[in-house]
Amino acid sequence: MKRKREIFIGNVGIGGSHRVSIQSMCAVDTCDVNAVIAQIHALAEAGCEIVRLAVPDEDALAPLKEIIRVSPLPVVADIHFNPELALGAIAAGSHGIRINPGNIGNRERVKEILIAANDKNIPIRIGVNSGSLEKKYRNIPGYVAEKMVASVMDKVKFFEDNDFFNIKISLKSSDVIQTVRAYRLIDQECDYPLHLGVTEAGTFFSGAIKSAVGIGSLLLDGIGSTIRVSLTDNPVEEIRVAKEILKVTGIRPEGIELISCPTCSRTSVDLVKIVNEAEARLSTIKTGKKIVVAVMGCEVNGPGEAKTADVGLAFSKESGYIFKKGRMVGKVKPEESIDKLLEQIRDLL
Amino acid sequence: MKRKREIFIGNVGIGGSHRVSIQSMCAVDTCDVNAVIAQIHALAEAGCEIVRLAVPDEDALAPLKEIIRVSPLPVVADIHFNPELALGAIAAGSHGIRINPGNIGNRERVKEILIAANDKNIPIRIGVNSGSLEKKYRNIPGYVAEKMVASVMDKVKFFEDNDFFNIKISLKSSDVIQTVRAYRLIDQECDYPLHLGVTEAGTFFSGAIKSAVGIGSLLLDGIGSTIRVSLTDNPVEEIRVAKEILKVTGIRPEGIELISCPTCSRTSVDLVKIVNEAEARLSTIKTGKKIVVAVMGCEVNGPGEAKTADVGLAFSKESGYIFKKGRMVGKVKPEESIDKLLEQIRDLL
Repeated sequence: MKRKREIFIGNVGIGGSHRVSIQSMCAVDTCDVNAVIAQIHALAEAGCEIVRLAVPDEDALAPLKEIIRVSPLPVVADIHFNPELALGAIAAGSHGIRINPGNIGNRERVKEILIAANDKNIPIRIGVNSGSLEKKYRNIPGYVAEKMVASVMDKVKFFEDNDFFNIKISLKSSDVIQTVRAYRLIDQECDYPLHLGVTEAGTFFSGAIKSAVGIGSLLLDGIGSTIRVSLTDNPVEEIRVAKEILKVTGIRPEGIELISCPTCSRTSVDLVKIVNEAEARLSTIKTGKKIVVAVMGCEVNGPGEAKTADVGLAFSKESGYIFKKGRMVGKVKPEESIDKLLEQIRDLL
Repeated sequence: MKRKREIFIGNVGIGGSHRVSIQSMCAVDTCDVNAVIAQIHALAEAGCEIVRLAVPDEDALAPLKEIIRVSPLPVVADIHFNPELALGAIAAGSHGIRINPGNIGNRERVKEILIAANDKNIPIRIGVNSGSLEKKYRNIPGYVAEKMVASVMDKVKFFEDNDFFNIKISLKSSDVIQTVRAYRLIDQECDYPLHLGVTEAGTFFSGAIKSAVGIGSLLLDGIGSTIRVSLTDNPVEEIRVAKEILKVTGIRPEGIELISCPTCSRTSVDLVKIVNEAEARLSTIKTGKKIVVAVMGCEVNGPGEAKTADVGLAFSKESGYIFKKGRMVGKVKPEESIDKLLEQIRDLL
């Protein structure tokens, strides 16, 4: 893991000593300003910090400008094929732009983009994607990861030669192994902050697993400055998955972490029901602190997890034992156990 | 990643050159033989290969024997606190036993277990769990990972000193970072096969993410010979998550992998609906081959992913283009697109 330069998308710092941020992308027509604004508000409410919008053609530029004016989140314009659109998006006030080296074409026009972005002091993400690699890299033998890295490093050099250093990089493959490999390679190659994602990850369930494995394993190794989970679903679901990945990797431990056992023959109470109810009620508690809550079914790991947690509930046969900060503070019946657990949690907050 | 010795749980090889296997644990009372058998059949049907049963007391030994007699899967007996139960479970015909070094007690009795297991040629899993670490390790300063490794290595040495080498190891913490750290350490320390899991991972959603990050990142590094996903849910759900983790890490790529984009302003069709319908219909296809299917919303990454996939469908505005093994084979309307996609897939099988 290499320390990264600091860049800013609007007021959100990326790289340097900034915490890993969460991004998503609007899934509605950029020209439908009301729908976009509604989606950005829903994303912001869910915990999204940077939003990206596709700018497929010139018709989208006027709506983009209006969206940027009222958006509660910094806006990144996603540009493909046409350098002219990048210039338009910069003029419209985008807080950052993403271009795809596989399809942006003409280097002379790209130079104009670099000058315009430097003038406005906004970053450019060089976003390589396995599905749109340039032919010259696609056709060389070897792993997709190495091809993506070669493609992006070529553009990085071109940017640097033109005095542009306000760079963020992504190398997304729809294959988790290649994605992880590519980011590990680029992490050693340069000090620009990395935007992590597994592209085209699929529907909610398989996309969440794919993203958790790919993004999660990189974050555990200290790689990645900002993340985007891609799901073929409502983008708000992307934020839910992203937040969970950041929580379990210890990057953003704030909030309640619920430890609960899978139950077995030793469990005498309906633990699945108790845990699901506990989870539902805990989800309404907002806190900036990390609170570990354990709900356990038997005496094997129950007391240990309940004592290690901030607040714990461990059953032994039909009785529950409530723990707080390592000390047993009460014995409860299953039906009153969640109330008692929540009392202790509220007490801590 | 160190090459591991080979052990066998019944007919399932673990370590050596065997593929990573999937385990789960029954969540019903071991004494309720019918319920256990029904759950084992459901697990086997879902793809589980080894099943574990808790043996909480002597009353469970007779039912255990009966279950082993009829079980379609090899059975591991999970023993805590009482070495006598381990001897009983071995006598009952268990294909393996799991003991917890944190609570199994008396070394003289453990020696008897080693002799009995050697006689029957069955493996013992030394299963350390952060929630039930022995006091002597719990109270030393430092990371939980190092404590778990110290605890297990002490038992490994004791087993080896008593000529027992038919060993499998697990080091499960409810903290993903400590789990990954512990397995990375033990992987370098010895050549016994590793059973991976994040313990007490929680309910379906957070438990799936936690397991995907923890188990997935280890598998990507080549660590792990068998896995168990722990969820506070029906154990059949554990198998679904485990299979997905093995698929996305490339360990068991068989089956259909659906690549689909998150949609954006460029998408002119209702891609979420199309992809969900495609996924539902694809889920009924059973195949031992790896088939990559891409369903993409626009011309940015669509043609690239669709060409790279075995069968692809990429939309451009309102028209879909079907690809097979890199060649465009037809143009379709959205409403007929899934039928046409499935025709091509059936053609490949």
